Amino acid sequence: MTRVLVIGGSDAGISAGLHIQELDPNTRPTLVVADAYPNFSICGIPYHVSGEVPDWRTLAHRTRADLENAGLDLRLNTRATRIDPFARTVTVVDHDGPSELPYDQLIIGTGAVPIRPRIEGLDTLGPTDGVHLLHTMDDTFALTSTLERQPESAVVVGAGYLGLEMVEALRSRGVAVTLVEMLPEVLSTVDRELGGLVRAELHAHDVDVRTGTTVGRIERHAGRLRVLGSDGFERTTDVVLVVVGVRPDTALAETARVKLGVRGAIAVDRGMRTTVDHIYAAGDSVHTYHRLLGTDTYLPLGTTAHKQGRVAGENALGAFRRFAGSLGTQVLKVFDLAIARTGVRDRDAIDFRPVTHATVADDHKAYYPGARPIHLRVTGDAASGRLLGAQLVGHRDSSVHKRIDVFATAIHHGMAVTDVEDLDLSYTPPLGSPYDAVQVAAHAWTQQHGD
Amino acid sequence: MTRVLVIGGSDAGISAGLHIQELDPNTRPTLVVADAYPNFSICGIPYHVSGEVPDWRTLAHRTRADLENAGLDLRLNTRATRIDPFARTVTVVDHDGPSELPYDQLIIGTGAVPIRPRIEGLDTLGPTDGVHLLHTMDDTFALTSTLERQPESAVVVGAGYLGLEMVEALRSRGVAVTLVEMLPEVLSTVDRELGGLVRAELHAHDVDVRTGTTVGRIERHAGRLRVLGSDGFERTTDVVLVVVGVRPDTALAETARVKLGVRGAIAVDRGMRTTVDHIYAAGDSVHTYHRLLGTDTYLPLGTTAHKQGRVAGENALGAFRRFAGSLGTQVLKVFDLAIARTGVRDRDAIDFRPVTHATVADDHKAYYPGARPIHLRVTGDAASGRLLGAQLVGHRDSSVHKRIDVFATAIHHGMAVTDVEDLDLSYTPPLGSPYDAVQVAAHAWTQQHGD
Repeated sequence: MTRVLVIGGSDAGISAGLHIQELDPNTRPTLVVADAYPNFSICGIPYHVSGEVPDWRTLAHRTRADLENAGLDLRLNTRATRIDPFARTVTVVDHDGPSELPYDQLIIGTGAVPIRPRIEGLDTLGPTDGVHLLHTMDDTFALTSTLERQPESAVVVGAGYLGLEMVEALRSRGVAVTLVEMLPEVLSTVDRELGGLVRAELHAHDVDVRTGTTVGRIERHAGRLRVLGSDGFERTTDVVLVVVGVRPDTALAETARVKLGVRGAIAVDRGMRTTVDHIYAAGDSVHTYHRLLGTDTYLPLGTTAHKQGRVAGENALGAFRRFAGSLGTQVLKVFDLAIARTGVRDRDAIDFRPVTHATVADDHKAYYPGARPIHLRVTGDAASGRLLGAQLVGHRDSSVHKRIDVFATAIHHGMAVTDVEDLDLSYTPPLGSPYDAVQVAAHAWTQQHGD
Repeated sequence: MTRVLVIGGSDAGISAGLHIQELDPNTRPTLVVADAYPNFSICGIPYHVSGEVPDWRTLAHRTRADLENAGLDLRLNTRATRIDPFARTVTVVDHDGPSELPYDQLIIGTGAVPIRPRIEGLDTLGPTDGVHLLHTMDDTFALTSTLERQPESAVVVGAGYLGLEMVEALRSRGVAVTLVEMLPEVLSTVDRELGGLVRAELHAHDVDVRTGTTVGRIERHAGRLRVLGSDGFERTTDVVLVVVGVRPDTALAETARVKLGVRGAIAVDRGMRTTVDHIYAAGDSVHTYHRLLGTDTYLPLGTTAHKQGRVAGENALGAFRRFAGSLGTQVLKVFDLAIARTGVRDRDAIDFRPVTHATVADDHKAYYPGARPIHLRVTGDAASGRLLGAQLVGHRDSSVHKRIDVFATAIHHGMAVTDVEDLDLSYTPPLGSPYDAVQVAAHAWTQQHGD
């Protein structure tokens, strides 16, 4: 029996463990989990903070009992501190102190940690002062505890996915919110034209949006917090939430001297093998093979972590699976808007001659009540005609999230933009059009940029 | 300049005409349209009858002026009665009588006509008696005129797409409805297990559903209508609507002696060429190349008609386009339910070893409010692992229609069921799951029927 040790209890680690059990019920993988919350949905945190998910326990994809019944040996509240790749042991520390766990195959799924930007005061102020970072369940409890004091206002630093979701969460608790972003537009993962639609949605929900603004200092001031930034930005507030992205947590992996790759993430091949024998890694701690670019990128996403975890688990049992690759497909709900993207944008489309074309198309036939516009931006290669990417913004009920999946599936297969028009997609007037919005956008691109 | 003559003003004909104009602005195609309603959405008729689309004029995808401005020469209220393929003329009849129209290239888009089942009385009773078939705008006006008399009850014969949509339309006008279907379950285009869910939705909206029942006779009785059927079925009612499907309208094409193919539809190759030189045909009057089966089938669908029309138009100008093929992708809304399908089911999967696996998966993470189940049936080839088809039933807001499109795009590319799990699909808790319902179903199939 292979002794498989998995470090990490989030998407990558849990997927690896469960897939191992699925493939070989005799292997009982040990999962070392730093906190008491295995298999919690980090993506669900904003909805607990908002109050939409009142009981934080329901954020668990599976309960501890589910996981144990599925054959996983869980070591909770246990930190892995060091790998000895020669002895094939991992040093772990729990409430009884340090000990060594042996392994035949090791899977690292240590995930990511929030980036701490250079803001004066951020190192000395903390949750008790109302200054928060947000990544773990413990971070969540600290924030909800602050929010129980019913603060009047908050400053959110960072207008990425988590920042925008947290703005909505705070607004739905009645907190006045200022959103500060260093870049010229919110949500820099989509083009500025679409970011502008998101900004309008934020304005419609009374969010004070400050783009092109860098926060330089947070300080206590008359029992509250003062946030100071570029161009004379200054706010007195009760809560500061800093959510400017994540970086891979490679501290453990580095003790085994694994090579690091893109953006300092653990380098892995498509079999999720690190450069050290018997050590696999998956999820937010590793760099990610990009299916379209054919290169490694850093795209920390739960969906990818799940898939990589499965590959790592299967290969740890001796298989030769390859990760199919990521396309950076993402969707985000902000108030009543859904924003989705897949593939690459002009600036990322190295080795191509990318052109992007914007289209607006209804989510269903205009004559049927309730039709709403979807804003689509399709990126294709002017040289080959190949579909490179798509970005969509529309109402949360306009199936933007599944329309982006049609584009993602098309890119997965290397389709040409014009061939998207040939897909046999479904239609009924209350739900679509004879040529779906996806195809209308593909057609518009082709008309403009050749066949 | 090529003289292109198009017969038919619905999806196939209009698409052909518009695409010709797009490709060659100097060619001004002539469209011969039997009635006064070019480019009307037949699929939208139920929503006008229901009252959701109060003005029937809005059912036009484009107005007459739109079409003329786009460069089409419209001959409305003009019936084409005969083709002379040697002289290359078509005899047409309008209010001035018959005349001959010459062509260099002819595109037939005559569509389909409703099937008249062998029901005693159906040939003698008509709209003024409250007995209706439904396919054209004129049929629609006849029906809405009957409904203005505020009938109490109706019998709908046929529980296919149109029958179910019309049941909903009549119910939303407060009409008591009995739905009669010859087959054992409603909506025979999906498996019986899913048809049962549709039946439950009909029951929840007080529809009296009679399956396994054949209507044999309709007669006038004491100022109302009496409908008699198998097993002692008998209803006295005010309106009878017979919607049991369509058959290709090949009357015109047969005057040119074109070969007929599957189910009596016009035989065409993938370039939409008939067996007679210079005559193309597209839409509901032709048989349809099935991309997965690699054979011709009869699948009269607006989406397909559009695509075939474009191919016919392009080839009439001398190109060599090929129709990419249909997968029979369809979606239907019945009250609050959406029912979608793509590809083939067990019984249609000739040359394969089909197995179908049923799964239920949430439309989004269960912890976020409002999650609803989607019922999925995935069909794969047990021999090769290839994805053959999918059927989905869920709430109309659960993006069933775009989830079927992900399956359709996967089948378009000949994916294996298990590879669907590798697709990089979007996720956010309010709109999906890390493994989307589509992937959960693919995984369940693979677990059951091999990799």
